[in-house]
Amino acid sequence: MTHSIKAQLRFNDIDILGHLNNTVYFSLYDLGKAKYMESIGLRDEDMARPDCVIVDIHCSYFIPVKYGDDIDIVTHCSHIGDKSFTLHQQMVDGEGRVRSECSSVMVYIDRATGLSAPLPEAYRRKIEDFEHL
Amino acid sequence: MTHSIKAQLRFNDIDILGHLNNTVYFSLYDLGKAKYMESIGLRDEDMARPDCVIVDIHCSYFIPVKYGDDIDIVTHCSHIGDKSFTLHQQMVDGEGRVRSECSSVMVYIDRATGLSAPLPEAYRRKIEDFEHL
Amino acid sequence: MTHSIKAQLRFNDIDILGHLNNTVYFSLYDLGKAKYMESIGLRDEDMARPDCVIVDIHCSYFIPVKYGDDIDIVTHCSHIGDKSFTLHQQMVDGEGRVRSECSSVMVYIDRATGLSAPLPEAYRRKIEDFEHL
Amino acid sequence: MTHSIKAQLRFNDIDILGHLNNTVYFSLYDLGKAKYMESIGLRDEDMARPDCVIVDIHCSYFIPVKYGDDIDIVTHCSHIGDKSFTLHQQMVDGEGRVRSECSSVMVYIDRATGLSAPLPEAYRRKIEDFEHL
Repeated sequence: MTHSIKAQLRFNDIDILGHLNNTVYFSLYDLGKAKYMESIGLRDEDMARPDCVIVDIHCSYFIPVKYGDDIDIVTHCSHIGDKSFTLHQQMVDGEGRVRSECSSVMVYIDRATGLSAPLPEAYRRKIEDFEHL
Repeated sequence: MTHSIKAQLRFNDIDILGHLNNTVYFSLYDLGKAKYMESIGLRDEDMARPDCVIVDIHCSYFIPVKYGDDIDIVTHCSHIGDKSFTLHQQMVDGEGRVRSECSSVMVYIDRATGLSAPLPEAYRRKIEDFEHL
Repeated sequence: MTHSIKAQLRFNDIDILGHLNNTVYFSLYDLGKAKYMESIGLRDEDMARPDCVIVDIHCSYFIPVKYGDDIDIVTHCSHIGDKSFTLHQQMVDGEGRVRSECSSVMVYIDRATGLSAPLPEAYRRKIEDFEHL
Repeated sequence: MTHSIKAQLRFNDIDILGHLNNTVYFSLYDLGKAKYMESIGLRDEDMARPDCVIVDIHCSYFIPVKYGDDIDIVTHCSHIGDKSFTLHQQMVDGEGRVRSECSSVMVYIDRATGLSAPLPEAYRRKIEDFEHL
C-alpha cells in the first residue's frame, strides 16, 4: 500500500538554478510523513510531544523539479523494527517518473521517559494493517 | 473579482508557538500572487527575468493559523497606477474569517533597461479585464 | 540607540533571480527583533509563551541583496504606545546603503488571559533606557 | 583538514518541539558546503550554473539543537571518485559534541553538455591540496 499527496510548490522553493532547492525536498517529504501518519490513525495528539522522532534521513536526487511541475509525494512503510520503523518516500511526476527518493528512520519515544521504547502493539498494528504486512 | 487558492501548510511552517510562523505568511502570499498573475495571462515567460518586482509589502495578522487549518489565499488587484499596481490579499479560513491581510506594491520593469517603466497597455488591460475595472 | 547584527545569508535564501528572496527578509528581521529584545534584557523566559506578538509588518525593498553581500540588520524602537511598541529595522550594507526597511508593531500579551494588555512599567523602562527615550 | 563555520540560527528555524527543525539542517549543511568550496578556491563563477550538483544526502540526528545553541558546521571531503566526491559534515556544539552528521555526494557537471563528467585535474587537486590527500 502507498499513501500519496499532491505537493504544492511555492515560488520561493525554487533556487537560483531554477530548480526545487535540495533543502526543500525535506519539507515536502516531512509533510508526506505527517499526512501518512494521520491517514493511518497515528496523528500525534499533541504536536509538541510527538510519538516518534526522525533519527536518520537518506535522500537521492534523480531528476530536478521545476516550478509548475506536477509532483506527488508517495509514502509507505518499508520496515518495522522493534523500536523503530522506516518510511520510504518518492517524488513522482505526472508521467510516473521518480524524481527523488527518501528513506527516514523514525524512532518511537516513550513520553514518560523521553527515551526510545518498543513500538506499542496497537501502534505497530496500525502500520501493519495499512501496509498489509 | 477575486482569485483564490487553497494553501498547503507544511509541518515545518509551524513555529514553537504552534502557529504558522509570521515569516511563512509571505511565502504563501507570494504563491498567491504568482498564481493570480498566471490566471490572468501574465505569467512571466522567463521566471529569472520577471516583468515586475515587489517594492513594498504590508501585512496584518488578525487570528493565528494552526497546522491543519483550512486556509484560502485570496488575491485581487486593488489599485493600478502608472508604473505599478497593488495586489491586496487575505488569508480566509473555512468559516470565512479573515485571519490575515496583505498589500503588495508591484513595480513594472522594462527588461531592456532594468528600470521601472509604465505598464504596457496590453499588460494593464489584462488586469483591468479580470478585475472589471 | 540602535542594535545591529550581521546577517548570515544562506545559499537557499537566494531565489531564481539571484536575489535574497522577498520572503527571507522577514526571517532575518525576525532574528534581529529576537536579538534586540535579548540585548535589552527582555528575552522571553519561555519561547513557547512570548511576552508579545507581531500584529503588523511593513517592509520596503530598495536595493536587491545578493549572496555574499555584507548585510547588517539594524533595529531600534521607534514608538512606544500603551499596549504596543514599534520596532523599526533596516538592512544596511557594508557601504552604509539602506537596502530595505521594515516596521513591526508588537503587542504586549498578558499570559494569564492571553489578551493584549498595557506594557508593564518594568518592561517599558527597559526599552526606554536602551533608546534614551 | 576540516573547514568550519559558525551557524547563525534563526528564530523561525525552531519548530513546535522547540528544536531546530529536521529540514533546516540541510540549509545549514548547504551553507557549509558553499563556504567550503569557496575557501578552497572552487567558488562557482556563475551561481546559476554550478560546477557540481548534489545527487545524494544522508543525515543522522544525534542530539536536538535548540535556539541559542552554539553550533559549528564542520566540513571535509571524505572521498574523491572519478566523476564525484563526497563531503562529510558535522554539527558540533561548544562542548565538542557531535549533534548531527551528514554525507553528500556531489557530481561534477560538464557545463557544455550538462552531463556528469570526470573531475578536471585542477579541480581535483584543489580538494586534494586542502585535504592533504
